Amino acid sequence: MIQIGIVGGTGYTGVELLRLLALHPKVEIAVVTSRADAGTRVDAVYPSLRGYCNVVFTPPEVESLAACNVVFFATPNGTAMLMAEQLLQRGVKIIDLSADFRLQDVKQWEHWYGMQHACPALINEAVYGLPEINRAAIKAARLIACPGCYPTAVQLGFLPLIEQGLIDTQRLIADVKSGVSGAGRKAELATLMSETGESFKAYAVAGHRHAPEITQGLSKFAGAAVSLTFVPHLTPMIRGIHATLYGQLQTDVKDLQALYEQRYKEEPFVDVLPQGAHPDTRNVRGSNRCQIAVHQPQGGNTVVVLSVIDNLVKGAAGQAVQAMNLMFGFEEAQGLQTLALYP
Amino acid sequence: MIQIGIVGGTGYTGVELLRLLALHPKVEIAVVTSRADAGTRVDAVYPSLRGYCNVVFTPPEVESLAACNVVFFATPNGTAMLMAEQLLQRGVKIIDLSADFRLQDVKQWEHWYGMQHACPALINEAVYGLPEINRAAIKAARLIACPGCYPTAVQLGFLPLIEQGLIDTQRLIADVKSGVSGAGRKAELATLMSETGESFKAYAVAGHRHAPEITQGLSKFAGAAVSLTFVPHLTPMIRGIHATLYGQLQTDVKDLQALYEQRYKEEPFVDVLPQGAHPDTRNVRGSNRCQIAVHQPQGGNTVVVLSVIDNLVKGAAGQAVQAMNLMFGFEEAQGLQTLALYP
Amino acid sequence: MIQIGIVGGTGYTGVELLRLLALHPKVEIAVVTSRADAGTRVDAVYPSLRGYCNVVFTPPEVESLAACNVVFFATPNGTAMLMAEQLLQRGVKIIDLSADFRLQDVKQWEHWYGMQHACPALINEAVYGLPEINRAAIKAARLIACPGCYPTAVQLGFLPLIEQGLIDTQRLIADVKSGVSGAGRKAELATLMSETGESFKAYAVAGHRHAPEITQGLSKFAGAAVSLTFVPHLTPMIRGIHATLYGQLQTDVKDLQALYEQRYKEEPFVDVLPQGAHPDTRNVRGSNRCQIAVHQPQGGNTVVVLSVIDNLVKGAAGQAVQAMNLMFGFEEAQGLQTLALYP
Amino acid sequence: MIQIGIVGGTGYTGVELLRLLALHPKVEIAVVTSRADAGTRVDAVYPSLRGYCNVVFTPPEVESLAACNVVFFATPNGTAMLMAEQLLQRGVKIIDLSADFRLQDVKQWEHWYGMQHACPALINEAVYGLPEINRAAIKAARLIACPGCYPTAVQLGFLPLIEQGLIDTQRLIADVKSGVSGAGRKAELATLMSETGESFKAYAVAGHRHAPEITQGLSKFAGAAVSLTFVPHLTPMIRGIHATLYGQLQTDVKDLQALYEQRYKEEPFVDVLPQGAHPDTRNVRGSNRCQIAVHQPQGGNTVVVLSVIDNLVKGAAGQAVQAMNLMFGFEEAQGLQTLALYP
Repeated sequence: MIQIGIVGGTGYTGVELLRLLALHPKVEIAVVTSRADAGTRVDAVYPSLRGYCNVVFTPPEVESLAACNVVFFATPNGTAMLMAEQLLQRGVKIIDLSADFRLQDVKQWEHWYGMQHACPALINEAVYGLPEINRAAIKAARLIACPGCYPTAVQLGFLPLIEQGLIDTQRLIADVKSGVSGAGRKAELATLMSETGESFKAYAVAGHRHAPEITQGLSKFAGAAVSLTFVPHLTPMIRGIHATLYGQLQTDVKDLQALYEQRYKEEPFVDVLPQGAHPDTRNVRGSNRCQIAVHQPQGGNTVVVLSVIDNLVKGAAGQAVQAMNLMFGFEEAQGLQTLALYP
Repeated sequence: MIQIGIVGGTGYTGVELLRLLALHPKVEIAVVTSRADAGTRVDAVYPSLRGYCNVVFTPPEVESLAACNVVFFATPNGTAMLMAEQLLQRGVKIIDLSADFRLQDVKQWEHWYGMQHACPALINEAVYGLPEINRAAIKAARLIACPGCYPTAVQLGFLPLIEQGLIDTQRLIADVKSGVSGAGRKAELATLMSETGESFKAYAVAGHRHAPEITQGLSKFAGAAVSLTFVPHLTPMIRGIHATLYGQLQTDVKDLQALYEQRYKEEPFVDVLPQGAHPDTRNVRGSNRCQIAVHQPQGGNTVVVLSVIDNLVKGAAGQAVQAMNLMFGFEEAQGLQTLALYP
Repeated sequence: MIQIGIVGGTGYTGVELLRLLALHPKVEIAVVTSRADAGTRVDAVYPSLRGYCNVVFTPPEVESLAACNVVFFATPNGTAMLMAEQLLQRGVKIIDLSADFRLQDVKQWEHWYGMQHACPALINEAVYGLPEINRAAIKAARLIACPGCYPTAVQLGFLPLIEQGLIDTQRLIADVKSGVSGAGRKAELATLMSETGESFKAYAVAGHRHAPEITQGLSKFAGAAVSLTFVPHLTPMIRGIHATLYGQLQTDVKDLQALYEQRYKEEPFVDVLPQGAHPDTRNVRGSNRCQIAVHQPQGGNTVVVLSVIDNLVKGAAGQAVQAMNLMFGFEEAQGLQTLALYP
Repeated sequence: MIQIGIVGGTGYTGVELLRLLALHPKVEIAVVTSRADAGTRVDAVYPSLRGYCNVVFTPPEVESLAACNVVFFATPNGTAMLMAEQLLQRGVKIIDLSADFRLQDVKQWEHWYGMQHACPALINEAVYGLPEINRAAIKAARLIACPGCYPTAVQLGFLPLIEQGLIDTQRLIADVKSGVSGAGRKAELATLMSETGESFKAYAVAGHRHAPEITQGLSKFAGAAVSLTFVPHLTPMIRGIHATLYGQLQTDVKDLQALYEQRYKEEPFVDVLPQGAHPDTRNVRGSNRCQIAVHQPQGGNTVVVLSVIDNLVKGAAGQAVQAMNLMFGFEEAQGLQTLALYP
């Protein structure tokens, strides 16, 4: 049994961590922090957890968190970087679900996140927590930067094609659609049901924070800088991300289906669907899976990859638990064997 | 490990049984039948089950089902009654999620279900599978008639009041709202998203098949015939039932909250919320729980009970698994320890 | 052409007034106020109005509003009462969509709305703007208190029964369901799509501000104080209210259907559906209609009335325009001949 | 007053025609056909039309339709081509909302629609009813082939760029998302709310019937064959199409915004949003508008066009009425001055 701390337990990624960890056989939830709700029982705020979580919210303090083996940051950007150093010094491992340690380039981070980075020294140490490319490093890490939700869906979708040098990496297009829970649990006009229900829109076409993260990842796969057009959209549902990815084949490829199946055959949480399939976000709702299909319409030059995840699971809390399992030598899928909720 | 058969595996209660049983440590899914999909892998129809279910749909045949320890009928009404006798004779236990054995009065059953009952001899033997009132009988049963979804929410809500003789049983009102999955997985105009999304309606106000089932149950609690006005509604969501129940207190009651907490304190799947709470269907989505709150607005004579379940879990497949656990001496909550999917 | 002012043009009732009035042939929208958006074009905030509304938001000032023939208050409670007197003195008529002048009893108002009433002198003069009972008074009024959304659906549903003394007015039950736009256009956690989508709940069972308003209205119909249990619910859709009303018949009634048809046969915006029908909120979405059906399940003592409106139209802006038409001698349905948006 | 016939009045495009035409001052709805509902009042099937449509459904017969000035076909594909010739001979104009006359190449049509074309002789005469490129021809036409919903959104989005030869027409990508009403009003498993709610998916990536229609149109704009990758998606809402279009600029362009504004400045139903905007499908819900925004992310080579319509209005019934207005010399926007229903 390891002791778990969760900083920022009142957001959607926080409560999703609680949903997953409450049933994880190797962990005990010791500390869940919330400034606003300190003193309140966690299950008073989240009645879905009644009977599974007896913890009371406490204010975020290094002292209590330092007693944990690992601390998850499910906080807004800019919080983890303030506490990371102290906790690491106390021997606590850190899994950061926010963006604080995702970008290797501090200047770029400061540009996109609009603040000064409080802890640049740790950026290099932080391991980007995508097990499908970084499994060994994650096992050895003290500090994990969990990938964003869009970056997870897009990188897993493009990975086999780019690794193999099959597509023109100067003309990548990612048209991605997200459910509204991706915007977080905060009082905002833009994500009211009356504003987002029964409607569909693109946003941030001029530039979105996840674009540099994706580009950084894809460039590593390619071994050279890639160029990506990334267009995020808001879709009227709560959970789910659907990435539709477009690449131009620059070489004759015999069997894209086999390429994807081969690349992911050992991966517990990437599921390549049969030839011709169209993944549906509901089939991964609540599960830690990424389901992928690859198409080459009319045998042409354009390859279309469809990649779906639950933004709160494989796109956040589930991926964080997967990293934790690796870091502590647990079975990688422990606590993550939940089937999607269909219908 | 017991061997499980599921007849009618392509409906929503069938696939929900698969979701729950695929992870149940004491069972093996041996047979899943479907006339229409015979020969197809189950996970080809339900990609959410990929990796968790290697079974192929087969036609419903007594021979193959007879090798199971228990067979679930997740079929339309009128099917279980055709096969029940043969299976019982072969030593197979039966858990029927349809309505075939719910009503004790054959004439009434034939009136509401519009067909002749094929197996009236078994009606008396069938145990109504509501553990909160029938636990001992379920443990000893060969044939379980699982309660309907509306009846589960309504009976659990009214039970403490009626058992104690606190309300006028001649003036019961149940105003109940259901998500659309209650209508089943069949091609119908009325449950298209374009017909049911963004809209709310009552239906079957003149009479609904679940009314006699509820009345039968409440009358048993009361020890005398009750009179109920039951109005079902269709609400634009997929899963969930919310029952709003109205009763007229006919005696001075000191503490309704304590009454409910007391009645359900040993029940693993009935959760009485704190005083003043309003249960939300999402907090039981995907879980086997019934969450209940009891109110006495302005201290008046009218008691208002709010009772929510997931119609596919506590209202169908979860309750069926709970019954199976009891029948086979497993821990009652085995395989049902799933937390609700919030948000 | 009369000149129109709208105070509080950035809420849902404000923009709904704009949608209706932009096409009204007898009016010109002269002033639309918003403190927060002053200086911005209205159609920059609401792109649905592009080409139909050239007005720029201005701060709410008596001087500019005084040039209008009529001013609508689409404001939070507590605003109209601050400006009403001055505007009336300047000869401006007022239609208040908020609750400031709805309750005749100041003490009760102050209790439910949690503030001191700034203008009690006008409460008596204010005419409750439900044309179906107050048409003549509305025509002559200077100050209209528009009914709330719940009160409109409930009063129109109960009216014929209570007027005729057919039901026991000491045991009225109104189980009412509302879309989330009823909560208004403001940044709040509780009405995020992630919080309200795919879920159903009751709220304010202990007491809701609309209860005294409904009780006041029903008591007038009855000529004596009535007793009502009112339970509002939040349903996962944007527009629409569905009231399910329960009354106990205290006399033999021959033909409830004829009673309703007769009572409303001259009403342009109350539509009694054929015997046995179940109104669906989508069939009044965007329209000023109330559709009603009356049922007497199994010929028993309990009468069940189903009454649906669009909360933003007949429950707010549409009813306000109907009142305006009456006050200025326009055709009552002018500008309100919009059909519901189905599907 | 012209006399209108509608063949196939029970689908979503049929009832949408009724919604629009019921209030059109220059027309009278004379005949509405439905085999299944013949003999039933139209407003019994569609209670939203009560009071606005006194017609009774009749079987589709040339004799009765021949008395109309214009007949709309709101039928499945393959019906209009069977009656078109006879009606034209009787002097009746035809506006076909189905696909029967959309493709100029009969072989291609027969390939995609899987049947023999019954009336190839009329294909050449049929005018493609997109007023923004064919206004004069529509005015003179006897037979209109109304564009499909996807083709309308995509063509209007790409038109200015292709007309001006600004983008590489061999690498066009259209990633398009549709609400479920596009699938029509028919009993089908795939469009149940339980199947499509809270989920997002692509479909028909290998090939969709609208692809040849779009390619045909864009090729005309280009004056040469274009190459398009078209990926349609199903989004969990009822109405709305959002096209996200990607093109590679092949020349230096100074001002894309001005290009679009200039191209559409006289168009009553194409609204170019301000620089940097993101159109939202709800802002055109129920209206005949196409709202468009054009982006050039980070000043790169890729241009991204966002184009939204209501699939049932500008994508079907509204565009058909617009064509009718042109054919009969009415004001082009007559009967189409409805504002979008927000929220």
